Parts: sequence; C-alpha cells; structure tokens
Amino acid sequence: MSEATANAGPDSALERFLDDTKDARLESFKALLRIASISGIPAHAADCRIAAEFVAADLRGVGMEHVEVSETGGHPVVYADWLHAAGAPMVLVYCHYDVQPVDPLDVWESPPFVPVVKDGQMLARGASDCKCHVSMHLRAIEALMRTRGALPVNLKFVIEGEEESSSIHLDAWLEANKDRLKADFAVISDTGFFEGNLPAITVGLRGLVYFQLDVTGSTIDLHSGGYGGAVDNPINALCAIVAALKGPDGRIRVPGFYDDVVELTARDRAALARLPFDEEEYRKSLGVPALHGEPGYTALERIGARPTLDVCGIWGGFEGEGPKTIIPAHAHAKISCRLVANQDPEKIFGLVARYIEEVAPKSVRYSIQRLGDGKPSLTPIDGPATQAAARALMATFGAEPLFIREGGSVPVCASFESILGLSTLLLGFAPPDGRFHAPNEWMSMANYEMGIRAISRFWDEVAAVEAF
Amino acid sequence: MSEATANAGPDSALERFLDDTKDARLESFKALLRIASISGIPAHAADCRIAAEFVAADLRGVGMEHVEVSETGGHPVVYADWLHAAGAPMVLVYCHYDVQPVDPLDVWESPPFVPVVKDGQMLARGASDCKCHVSMHLRAIEALMRTRGALPVNLKFVIEGEEESSSIHLDAWLEANKDRLKADFAVISDTGFFEGNLPAITVGLRGLVYFQLDVTGSTIDLHSGGYGGAVDNPINALCAIVAALKGPDGRIRVPGFYDDVVELTARDRAALARLPFDEEEYRKSLGVPALHGEPGYTALERIGARPTLDVCGIWGGFEGEGPKTIIPAHAHAKISCRLVANQDPEKIFGLVARYIEEVAPKSVRYSIQRLGDGKPSLTPIDGPATQAAARALMATFGAEPLFIREGGSVPVCASFESILGLSTLLLGFAPPDGRFHAPNEWMSMANYEMGIRAISRFWDEVAAVEAF
Repeated sequence: MSEATANAGPDSALERFLDDTKDARLESFKALLRIASISGIPAHAADCRIAAEFVAADLRGVGMEHVEVSETGGHPVVYADWLHAAGAPMVLVYCHYDVQPVDPLDVWESPPFVPVVKDGQMLARGASDCKCHVSMHLRAIEALMRTRGALPVNLKFVIEGEEESSSIHLDAWLEANKDRLKADFAVISDTGFFEGNLPAITVGLRGLVYFQLDVTGSTIDLHSGGYGGAVDNPINALCAIVAALKGPDGRIRVPGFYDDVVELTARDRAALARLPFDEEEYRKSLGVPALHGEPGYTALERIGARPTLDVCGIWGGFEGEGPKTIIPAHAHAKISCRLVANQDPEKIFGLVARYIEEVAPKSVRYSIQRLGDGKPSLTPIDGPATQAAARALMATFGAEPLFIREGGSVPVCASFESILGLSTLLLGFAPPDGRFHAPNEWMSMANYEMGIRAISRFWDEVAAVEAF
Repeated sequence: MSEATANAGPDSALERFLDDTKDARLESFKALLRIASISGIPAHAADCRIAAEFVAADLRGVGMEHVEVSETGGHPVVYADWLHAAGAPMVLVYCHYDVQPVDPLDVWESPPFVPVVKDGQMLARGASDCKCHVSMHLRAIEALMRTRGALPVNLKFVIEGEEESSSIHLDAWLEANKDRLKADFAVISDTGFFEGNLPAITVGLRGLVYFQLDVTGSTIDLHSGGYGGAVDNPINALCAIVAALKGPDGRIRVPGFYDDVVELTARDRAALARLPFDEEEYRKSLGVPALHGEPGYTALERIGARPTLDVCGIWGGFEGEGPKTIIPAHAHAKISCRLVANQDPEKIFGLVARYIEEVAPKSVRYSIQRLGDGKPSLTPIDGPATQAAARALMATFGAEPLFIREGGSVPVCASFESILGLSTLLLGFAPPDGRFHAPNEWMSMANYEMGIRAISRFWDEVAAVEAF
C-alpha cells in the first residue's frame, strides 16, 4: 500500500462520533476559554495553574497516560503520553495553554473570558492563540480512542504555560526532560492559515541576529561651529556604517552573508506564487510609496526565503524642538538581521562584525553588543511529515494546502531542534485575521471542526509512513 | 602722512591720565559687574534695566550725546553718539551689558556678582563676556575726552541687553533705528584672544544652514520578521541619505556646494599657521582616536575656512533596553551646514534639498523643515579697519595680532551687515580661557588696561584712514 493512499477513505465511525459529540465539544472548548490564564501578569498565576490542571484532567479523561503537571519554576508544563502503538512512529506535540493580556478591555465586544459564538466565530481571548489547538488535539485523541480504543501512533504532549511571556523556563525544562521527550519528529500547533479557510502548512521560519552598535567620538558634545570640520561626527559615522551594510537595492553587502542561504527551488517559488497575495493591495495597506527589497524576488519570497538587515532603532545627539548645533559625543543603533536556512546566527554575526570593523571610520570608536539570536528553520515540502499533513489537509478541506514561509520566528522550533534534536512540523488552524494578541480575538468554528478531523487523519497518515 | 605711521607715537597726556585714574576705573568696572543683569531670567529684568541706566549715565558722564535707554519690547538698548569730528569716519560700536545665568552657584570661588581681583584676574559673572568691553570703550572715550576735549572720530554706541538670550528684539530695533545708525563700519566688541595675551582679531565667522529631515515609511511600526525585506526601512533610508551627503573623507558631496567658497590665500594660510595650536594636543583634549576632515587642510583651516555638514541629532524606532524587532514608521535627523564666505545660506539650502531629492530612496517619503540659517562673514585682513586695528594692537601689545577665523557665528554681525549694510570688525580682548558662560568667569586685568590703550589708539588710527 503506497503512502499516498494509506488512509484515503474516511473513518465513518470516527465521523459519526464527532457528529454526535459536537455540543459537548463546544462546551469543553468554552470551559477552557473561561480560564484567564494570562501568563505575563503575576496576578493570573493561579489561573495559569487552573488551566494546566484542566488540560491535565482532560488528557487523563481521553486516555492519555503519565499525565503530569510539571513544575518549571514558572507556570507549569503539562506532560502526557500514550506509547502503545508498537512499531508506529513517535511524535511529540507542542501547544500552549497560556494567553496574552486583554488590554484595552473597552474595545472587546464581549468580555474576553466569556466565550461567545457569533456568525461561526468563537470570540474569546485565546480562542485562536492557541487554546483552539489544545482543544482540537484533545478532541481528536478522544474521537480516536472512543471509536478504536487506541491511537495509530505513539504521542507525547508538551503543553506549555509561558509561550506568551517568552517561554522563559521552557529550555531548561526541555533539557531536564530530554530523555522522556525522544520522538521521531515534533508537531508544533501554534500557527494558522494564510487566507480564509484554505489549509496551510508553515514550512519556513526566519532566524535572527540582533545587536546594538554604539559609536563614540569626543568625550563630550561639541559645538558644531567651533569643532565642525576638525573631528568626525559619531552620527555621520554611524550612518556611513549602516549605509555600507545594505545597498540601495536592498542587498546586504557583508561579504559571505548569502553564502549559506538555501536558494528557492522552482517548486518553492511555485508554492509561494500560489498564495493569494496582491503586491499592490499589500503596498496600499502599508501606506508606502513602493515595496522595496532585493531584486529578482517577489515580496513573499523576500519575506519568507531571503535574509534582511533592518535598523530597528537609532538615536544620538539632540532630539528636541528647534535647532541645537552640536557634534554629539555618541550615537547608537539597534540592528536586526533576519536569517533563512541554512544561515547560522553565530557565523553571520561574525561576518557582520568583521565587515563593520572594515568599514567603520577610524576617526571614531565603536562597540557591538549582541542582544539576541535565533536559528532559521525550513521544513522540506516533500518531507514525510509535511506530506502526511498535506494529505490529511487535502482530504479534510478538499484543497491542496498552501506552503507558507513566515518572516518571523517561532522560538520553540529552535529549542526543539537544538535541545531535543527534533525536526518540527508547524500544523495550525488559526484564521490569519484572528486578532491574536488584540481585542476581539476569534477562532473559526469551521476550522476548529475541520481541524479535529484533519488531525485525526494526520495521525493515520503518519502511522502509514515507513520512516521519518 | 602714510596710514602705517599715522599715530605711531604715544599720546603722553592720555597715558598719564590713564595711569592717574587706574583706581577709579577699577571701581567703576566693579560697580558695573555688581549688577546681576541676567537677561535670560525674568526675575532679573529690573537688574537689566539698572545696568542699562548705569551704562547710560556713564556714557553721559564721559561726554557722549543723545544718550537714550531705548525700549525694544524686552531689555532696553542703550544708544549714544558723538558726532563732532567733522570729516572723520563714522563708526558704530556694539557691546552688550547683559550676562549669562550663574548656575551652578556652588562652584564659584566667590559670589558671581561680588567682583574680586586675584592674581591679576577680575573674577565675576560678565567680567570677560562682555562688561569688560563696555567698560574699556567707556574708559577710552573718557581718556580721550578729558585729555583732548574731543574724539578723533564720530562714534555711535549700541549697547544691547539681550545678547545672552538670542538678541530676540535686536533686529527689529535695528530696523526701526536704521537711519540714525548710519556709519562707515561697525566694531563689535564681544570676542577675545586666541592664546594668552597675544592680541588677536577675528576675521572670519561661519554661517549656518540648519534643517530637519523627516523620513516616513509605513503608516505604523511593522514587525521586522513579518515585513523585513518587503518594504524599505526609514532609518536605513535616512542613513543612506546622510551617508550620501558627505564622503568618508569629510568632503561634502552635494554638487555645487563648494562653488562659492572663498579659497584660502597663501597669506590666509600663513596667518592661521602662525596661531599657537598643536593638533595632537587638541586631539587628546577631545578624546578622539583621530582628527578628521576634508583632505588638504589643517584642522584650524577646516574649522575657520571650510564649510561642514554635521548631523546634530538623529532618532527613530526603538531606543529602549534589549531587542525590539520593528521596522519603524519614521526616522528623523537634524542637520547643520556651517558655511564660509561667500556661501549664501539660501542657495546652499537649495542645493542640499535638490541633492536629497536625487539621492532619497523612492521607497520612502521625506520632508525637510528649515530651522535656521545665518550668513558667513569674512573680513579681509588687509581691509582698512582691520589694518587700523592691527596697528593699534601692535603698538600697544608689542606683538603682531593673530588673525582668527572662528568656526561659529556671531549673529549680530549678520544683522549689522544685512539690516544696516555695515561691514564689521571684531575687536575683543577677552582671554580665550575666560570661562564665559561658566562658573568663575574672569577677565585679565592686563588685557583690560592694555585694551583701553589699544582702543584709544585705534580711534586715532581710524581717523587717519582716508576712506573705508
């Protein structure tokens, strides 16, 4: 039996179970949404623990084993597993039960922790980011267990409580639990679709190098009349360095910067070109006179598959009203490079630092502070996990999934890859306009229902894959 | 009788008078210094008026006529004239009677308005900036009138009370009094020596074009992950514009910028090279790794005789602690060009604005706000007023005066030139390290005494000049 047709037929018992339990499912989703598990606000620490206990109880109820509300030093991680699918793949699933703060409260149409369904949308804080995914995974497990008494694959769950506050304790917890987190790959469910209800799989995330560049000249601010022309100006010098880093065409001038970049294949470009995206509409929505970036690539290609260099902040000298004639003593810039596979943040930082040393005027001094970094990630579209997900989505939604490359980062991916050595699949169902982090966050109940079916199918598809 | 030897011999009666009246002169200088005429602090408005009345009374006492404490809308201008030297030149003399605030008070060795002479230094606020010049001019008039009953030239005095608070009412007052301020040239006494007690004449002042450059991109700050590579970054664009304005060698790249610059003659360069100045000492005192500027010129030549372009302030995006990954919506810079003779601020601004239009990326929008300008001024070293002053200084101090080009501006010069159509001679006697505007301001009493004699001689030298 080939992988492509492994589980093409619907599981009619499972479908029937899901049809019969819709109301109970809705209530259980709402119950989870009622818990104000805002991880970033200390006063909500008890709510975070309540949410963890709620999820743990739900996991136990659907038949998961070794369920544990595990301490991290911060909000707990909920762990659970089911390991009885002998010979089948082992998958680690990641979601988070914590949510963002709700300010500004007066903009919400209904209270953020009183979930309401209106026009097919579940309106509540955490509805799409990301309690929907916790609920969908649990309900898929439930349907499989109730109708078959077993799962087709071995599963381990890691459901975090600090994703909205920088996952500060997660890396240490992963490190400490490395042995029991072994798996063939990881599924991270905290992403969404690209447009409407077209299914999508995020296959690329950019990495990051972030640093501050401090340029100093004279020991004190100097009068620009009395000294202008005799000494260099740290702001002019900083601007010269910044201008040297990236050309007017948007191409980064640091030697070797692009050496390790995985070039887009014809298939990659076709996948991005399929995305419903209009550059002119996009330009208008941003209010810019023109889009801008490296020649030879579309805007989506540049965002998803090409590295960038941007100054995120700059300051120095006089910022007040009117004229003040000084040559400032110092000037500063915060600079971020977004990286793509296979750029290594460590190597890229070294190249950038060496280049700055080369181009910085000798008439000023400078120093560089590193402020953060993250590895890029790229999942091959034709990898077995991605293709299993694609088949499950196609079978459920009736449309080929879009393959998205996000310009940003999902830090947990890098942690799973570096600490656990796992490749990751980003499988999420949130609507692209779901107002994550904003008032009136919502989840499409159609995506929620279809997502449960897609996840169930996905486990069957994964079970049929011979090797990961 | 050639100009060069017109009054080479000392006026022994005048010398004797000055020797005999030294104590009274010191008391009268101290009396003026006791008045806390801080123009920038409203609570001292009455003191400013007292100072104006004091100066007016002194002018009357020495025999000046038409003495008037003239209203300006702010602190008054003191006007006086003496117009009985038939056929002799007419000279307008400018000084100011107001002073800077005294903070931080606890750093003063003695109270700022209790003048004390110690080691030949008069310690008081306003001692060198610029009540010394008011006092020296009055005492020179007094000596001439008492010993000869007349002055060798026709004089008009304009003694301002708002120089330390931007001379805000002066231009309107000059405009309103244009007719009675007609003269052959103006003497502005508000400058000083270059080093020690070597006499000096300031022959060059730089002008100014000052503007703010505002660059805008998207309507709101964007996530640098989600948008980086798709749109231009206003900070990067601003840095590119700034870098385009001036080359790494310090030469301004705006086409036509140097067209009207009066090149240094061999004589100009020799005059600057005579100044006691050590570039390495200067570099160390500023704490910079290297001096920097247009190739082919010394630091003093660049400060005094070459235009510059400096960013006085820059800001945009995130300036806080740590990393924040945004493409900011806007970025800003305050830019000053120091101009030299014969650059016209209006023309230079036009050239800079056109060049920015040419180099600014089309992927952002920008606007320019003008925040101020001033014309440069350059007095020919061999002009008749300068040479008359040089002879008087040589005869008094026994050393050829140094000819200084200041990098900054004296705004009143531009006003005298543009409103009254007068060329200006900068004749001042303040010590270069006199702590103007700072605690423990002081005046060299040797320079004060010599200055009175030099001014007296100067009027005789001016009287002997056939035409200005």
